Amino acid sequence: VATSKSQVSIVKHQLGDVDISVEPCRRDTFPAIALSAAYLKDVKHMSEDEKMIVCPIDPYVDSDYFRALADLDACSSSAITLLGIKPTYPSEKYGYILPETDENIGCGNKNDSVAPQTVSGQTLWKVKSFKEKPSEALAQEYIRQGALWNSGVFAVSIGYVLEKAHQTLDFSDYYDLYEHYHEMPKISFDYAVVEKEPDIQMLTFDGMWKDLGTWNTLTEAMTSEVKGKAILDETCENVHVINETDRPILCMGLKDVIVSASAEGILVSEKGRSSHMKPYVERFHEPLRYAEKSWGSYRVIDETKNSLTIKITLKAGHGMNYHSHEYRNETWTVLSGNGRSIVDDMEQPIRTGDVITIQAGCRHKLVADTELHVIEVQLGEEISVHDKRKYDE
Amino acid sequence: VATSKSQVSIVKHQLGDVDISVEPCRRDTFPAIALSAAYLKDVKHMSEDEKMIVCPIDPYVDSDYFRALADLDACSSSAITLLGIKPTYPSEKYGYILPETDENIGCGNKNDSVAPQTVSGQTLWKVKSFKEKPSEALAQEYIRQGALWNSGVFAVSIGYVLEKAHQTLDFSDYYDLYEHYHEMPKISFDYAVVEKEPDIQMLTFDGMWKDLGTWNTLTEAMTSEVKGKAILDETCENVHVINETDRPILCMGLKDVIVSASAEGILVSEKGRSSHMKPYVERFHEPLRYAEKSWGSYRVIDETKNSLTIKITLKAGHGMNYHSHEYRNETWTVLSGNGRSIVDDMEQPIRTGDVITIQAGCRHKLVADTELHVIEVQLGEEISVHDKRKYDE
Repeated sequence: VATSKSQVSIVKHQLGDVDISVEPCRRDTFPAIALSAAYLKDVKHMSEDEKMIVCPIDPYVDSDYFRALADLDACSSSAITLLGIKPTYPSEKYGYILPETDENIGCGNKNDSVAPQTVSGQTLWKVKSFKEKPSEALAQEYIRQGALWNSGVFAVSIGYVLEKAHQTLDFSDYYDLYEHYHEMPKISFDYAVVEKEPDIQMLTFDGMWKDLGTWNTLTEAMTSEVKGKAILDETCENVHVINETDRPILCMGLKDVIVSASAEGILVSEKGRSSHMKPYVERFHEPLRYAEKSWGSYRVIDETKNSLTIKITLKAGHGMNYHSHEYRNETWTVLSGNGRSIVDDMEQPIRTGDVITIQAGCRHKLVADTELHVIEVQLGEEISVHDKRKYDE
Repeated sequence: VATSKSQVSIVKHQLGDVDISVEPCRRDTFPAIALSAAYLKDVKHMSEDEKMIVCPIDPYVDSDYFRALADLDACSSSAITLLGIKPTYPSEKYGYILPETDENIGCGNKNDSVAPQTVSGQTLWKVKSFKEKPSEALAQEYIRQGALWNSGVFAVSIGYVLEKAHQTLDFSDYYDLYEHYHEMPKISFDYAVVEKEPDIQMLTFDGMWKDLGTWNTLTEAMTSEVKGKAILDETCENVHVINETDRPILCMGLKDVIVSASAEGILVSEKGRSSHMKPYVERFHEPLRYAEKSWGSYRVIDETKNSLTIKITLKAGHGMNYHSHEYRNETWTVLSGNGRSIVDDMEQPIRTGDVITIQAGCRHKLVADTELHVIEVQLGEEISVHDKRKYDE
């Protein structure tokens, strides 16, 4: 998984112990893919001839898609092999890939056991050109010419990516690239590499694939209008609600609207507009109110000038880092579960109903034997995520 | 103030120590007004000749309105004198009162110092008939005939109301009526009394009056589109947001919509539909998550199967009732303020950061010297508002 530092905890929480190539700062997809390639070679010791398949994390798919990824690996004989999605309608939201239609090149891989017919009945095309988000009429014409949607999924060899990266920045290995990552240009892989490469193939995929990159496209994959506690009155049309809070939502007389509520905030948007939310959300400057960590999760449930109350969930068998705070006291009240508290090296068993107070300066941590739910009240003149010192045990 | 038992705490919290006629069970406006009349006579020892003015609590008004109430008292010489609102447009939402237009009866009160011209330049009309929520065309015609909106405000003598009440139920005084209140019919004052009374006057009021009975009409009285933390994008038209939570709301591409968010729930409604919310809200069966009490307020911030975490605000100089719970333990963590905790008759001073644990069965209360903010964690097999025993101190 290639991701930024801020996503590492949530990735571990959701996937467990997986390999993560952490971007030390935000660049664009070309540096991120280059770093991943170096990670695979130098940390995972893979050959430069091995294929890596790059895929965005937000499509809604089934197992056919993952079989297609294996086909992509087995099939590809060009520098880059793309997975093209068979269009279901002339969408204006996607990029289109036009094939050389008079030049069906077949499955040219070296492994004879994967014959063309095993590639889920799909054929491999040579790519002629790329077209970004066209009008509906133009999209219709492209589809007539055999164009496919660009899924952003492609197979490429580790060596090929590293060669392109070395043309941009001089580095010896993964650790060196990581060190100098901030010197890489902010540029996408499409722009830096794909657009300049004449030797590109495309494999057709016509199984289920839905881009969940916007709230609107997410609703297209929902099997019911409502997720969570909500009621739509009978005058609502094409309304979807995703409610992650425990308070109810009532929608009346709405049309083509998405409502999404979480601990972080509430979105109410006409569906078409929902893809434009980013600049508005950035204006809120809200502190994080919910976070998933490798050991569990926490949620802010109350905040005042000199206090913060959070609810902590610790997964069975996990523990917090051993740490202390300089400027705040804390109180834990155990709502449920069994485990141990360690305060200034003294370990004590804890269970439902126990109350533990931690003075500023004390080292402390919680360990869960069964799943632990704890209310933590933080009290101090200055409450900040930066007021934290970690210790080895 | 005439209200139900469930509203007494919130009325005292907002208005302080006021006279309240508490309806022991839910009837309709005729029984409630009758009980108030008996309360004024037998508890407040007022004469039956005194006028009482009945007014709903939800119009948005300024001080001209309250001067009109005094005029109404001074002016009225009929059995019932209504305050009619001069229509500003042919609304389909209101009832209309038609006057006897050839019969301007002037200000017929006995107090010469209140001459017609002092009644804010308004005149007193004899009422011909009532019309409920007409079409716009019909409303236009009524307005041409001099009709006024029915505000639900009227002056009537205490004795007149008691006479009508005695025709319905035999009772000796307020205490007796209170005792037999459940025997009163569920019937509105309009239906039981006004529609049968031939002698009705109406005073015109053309100052500010806005009915805030629906979210839609409430937005008409708002001076800005947003109250609380919210952003409307530039494609929103005629959208109002009332956000009482601390999480932000983003609205995009909406038209004619009201969004209201509180600890109790979230409403997203086309403005015209918002008056129809009652039957939908009743389907939620939500427990109360916020309540104002005479001593302050509380808000539920977390809930699990065997726990409830609430944030309590105690007003300076106020204290809780002395009470105990049979089935739950509680923990108080003081977020800010000074006061005293009393647990099993032992009083101790408390301040920011103190933690007090109360075992099931212990009598306990908090008293605030300055405003107190406390996180209370309730833990037990069964957590219910009914698990409460009160004690005298």
